[in-house]
Amino acid sequence: MNESKNKLSMEELTSYAKRRGFVFQASELYGGIGGFWDLGPYGAELADNIKSSWWKFFVYKNANVVGVNTTIIQNPKLWKASGHIDTFVDPMVDCKECKHRFRADHVAGIDTNDLKKLDEKLKETACPNCGAKHSFTPARTFQMMFKTYVGPIEDDANVAYLRPETAGGIFAQYENVRETTRKKLPFGIAQIGKAFRNEITPGDFIFRLRELTQMELEVFVHPKQAKDQYAEWKQKCMDWVQSIGLSKENLQYHDHADDERAHYAEASVDIQYNYPFGFKELYGIANRTDYDLSAHAKESGKDLTYFDEATGERFIPYVIEPSVGVERLLMAVMLDAYDEEEVGGEKRVVMRFKNEIAPVKAAVLPLSKKPELSGLAKDVFAEIAGDYNVEYDETQSIGKRYRRQDEIGTPFCITVDFDSLEDKAVTVRERDTMKQERIKIEELKAYLDEKLKP
Amino acid sequence: MNESKNKLSMEELTSYAKRRGFVFQASELYGGIGGFWDLGPYGAELADNIKSSWWKFFVYKNANVVGVNTTIIQNPKLWKASGHIDTFVDPMVDCKECKHRFRADHVAGIDTNDLKKLDEKLKETACPNCGAKHSFTPARTFQMMFKTYVGPIEDDANVAYLRPETAGGIFAQYENVRETTRKKLPFGIAQIGKAFRNEITPGDFIFRLRELTQMELEVFVHPKQAKDQYAEWKQKCMDWVQSIGLSKENLQYHDHADDERAHYAEASVDIQYNYPFGFKELYGIANRTDYDLSAHAKESGKDLTYFDEATGERFIPYVIEPSVGVERLLMAVMLDAYDEEEVGGEKRVVMRFKNEIAPVKAAVLPLSKKPELSGLAKDVFAEIAGDYNVEYDETQSIGKRYRRQDEIGTPFCITVDFDSLEDKAVTVRERDTMKQERIKIEELKAYLDEKLKP
Repeated sequence: MNESKNKLSMEELTSYAKRRGFVFQASELYGGIGGFWDLGPYGAELADNIKSSWWKFFVYKNANVVGVNTTIIQNPKLWKASGHIDTFVDPMVDCKECKHRFRADHVAGIDTNDLKKLDEKLKETACPNCGAKHSFTPARTFQMMFKTYVGPIEDDANVAYLRPETAGGIFAQYENVRETTRKKLPFGIAQIGKAFRNEITPGDFIFRLRELTQMELEVFVHPKQAKDQYAEWKQKCMDWVQSIGLSKENLQYHDHADDERAHYAEASVDIQYNYPFGFKELYGIANRTDYDLSAHAKESGKDLTYFDEATGERFIPYVIEPSVGVERLLMAVMLDAYDEEEVGGEKRVVMRFKNEIAPVKAAVLPLSKKPELSGLAKDVFAEIAGDYNVEYDETQSIGKRYRRQDEIGTPFCITVDFDSLEDKAVTVRERDTMKQERIKIEELKAYLDEKLKP
Repeated sequence: MNESKNKLSMEELTSYAKRRGFVFQASELYGGIGGFWDLGPYGAELADNIKSSWWKFFVYKNANVVGVNTTIIQNPKLWKASGHIDTFVDPMVDCKECKHRFRADHVAGIDTNDLKKLDEKLKETACPNCGAKHSFTPARTFQMMFKTYVGPIEDDANVAYLRPETAGGIFAQYENVRETTRKKLPFGIAQIGKAFRNEITPGDFIFRLRELTQMELEVFVHPKQAKDQYAEWKQKCMDWVQSIGLSKENLQYHDHADDERAHYAEASVDIQYNYPFGFKELYGIANRTDYDLSAHAKESGKDLTYFDEATGERFIPYVIEPSVGVERLLMAVMLDAYDEEEVGGEKRVVMRFKNEIAPVKAAVLPLSKKPELSGLAKDVFAEIAGDYNVEYDETQSIGKRYRRQDEIGTPFCITVDFDSLEDKAVTVRERDTMKQERIKIEELKAYLDEKLKP
């Protein structure tokens, strides 16, 4: 395993993220809840900018990609068809002595869902909690979809699930989207939204969550195009993650071997990122063949074949699926952006976010709280705020305020001083170089627009 | 009740929204699921533009407002403290003859949750389904929050709920946000996200949903500022809904009388919209007093008082809450934008969306499919796509393609014709006036940027 180039450990990242208002423990006021994390003001902006960048890159720039927004709760038949009800499970086991519950594969130390193999291995294994031997119940499967009931009656007819991935809604609306947009193959449907996985052991901060945000693209292609399209989107995903600031040396492809792949996938690859705990999945790209649409056609009884007017062929399209989680990206982006340097004998901490994703684009900082300055500073704020996120901060020394903005990665600090009252100009300080420039207030918006252009 | 100025009935709207790719029934492939609707390509863009407009107006333009993104599943103690576990209920009743289940207040025809009053009234009421008399069970309360279990054990200790409103997460993070942003009163925390309500009788298309998207703002204020702040945000909400295109004559304030208000609210008002079924709630603004933070302080045992450095006072802030649902807005916006007119003896249907929220900003339409034209047209697409959503369409007659864009409300159609190969210019047609203008391709992006500026 390569040493990560990142300067923060997981503990340091978690603490930094909380202290600087990026990520808070969900329900911290009530002792938290395992596997759930809230985004604070800067984390929420950072995540929104990542989503917006993804949407522009994958939807707006591609004439053959459109978006949808489907619901988290769908008719459960959808998850029957997709295979999630039967196979989206983890093996679990209880210790009869101490009543603790475990992921059976974790305790057994083997990577399988095969219950017989697990039971065999668990015979020799002591309980990691109480140390008892021969104390495990038989391993059994645990459904990872969160279950609920729709309507006033809690019975089997009304069971529903929180979606484990956003893709299901895309497949279910494939035909409606194709018809209303009249798209020809290859074309893609994109979606950004929450997904839920009742992980028995969530962890590593926001790496493995019970509630996460997915950005998924399903590209429908002719079976003969699938190999080329797979290669093309694999490259696009790599280009995009670098475009938002991840270093090349912290990224690698990891091709899935035959036994790592879902049975229906013809090929799949992860883009891995070098987290403090090593290279692990960031982005997954798979060639899912015609598995999904065939399964939905079968379960629903609807014809989901595609008729190619040019060749007269009729077939079920193949699907190329690039899928990524926003929270993992946010974590990777924070790790990669974090930097420390010595300036004038003091440590300066700076988040070197790309302008496109920086949570705050500019900060307006009047040199003093005196009314004549804050009046002008508020005018400057009003002049530039609205299109993007600008902060206004007038408390403590200017040096401390610069450092605070560095620590949340604000590209531009704008100081309003007493000269500003005379010369109608402000000082703009650039985050990375710390260079300062005097800019006329009336030219400030155009100056920032130009600098902040992607 | 005033006659709505809108030209579509609910049935027509529902059908139009599906046919033009705005809103589809969720899981339609599997017979749907009551109270859940998906957004198709144009609905998803329209909703995103509404959210983005709201965020810019309420967060970016206000120096004292920041955003958060909290999880849908929180520690259930949060919902105990907020009162939702005890009071977020609907009364329901069963018919012992036909086994149908009803909203007790709807069947009784009285607007109350008082079970005794309901039982009294239901004695005289026949079952609306089978006509039986004296057949109702006693009315009882039904918890409207969707319930699930977190972790591998389905017992009372692991019950959790899908949030019924996004505000809960804001209150639970109030202190973390205040500390990390060092905001002074008055300041606001905004959030956009999904909320879930297990309505016994969802309906009216996307008006009353089981899964909806809320845009909520909680403004924390000194108790003495509450009245003024309430008036200020009430006006801002009205300004904003008009800025995205809702007609003044379709909007009205409806002040809540004492018996319509939650017990803790000092004042509350709806902005109502004139839907085809009459003036009903669109936007709610309330002065919630110190109810929320006091309740969370009590349940969590944490001190949530605010210390005012200027006056030396210590108190629990009051909260002004403007809250609106994206789907209702989307419905109102579609109703208001829909227009029909006669052009050259034919009916033209056009969605007169404001540029800011139009799902597609421009469409590139090569006059023919010939390769020399589509090559240039794709260059034109690449030139302008990326910052905003642009469509590319080369099938059927140019007249039909114009009409299709009119029907989804695209402000600008860009035709690439054979002259374009020579003069490097395109024809830009404006949606509302249908006026055409010849624009140099190299000037096209700047031309559109200028026209599309908010």
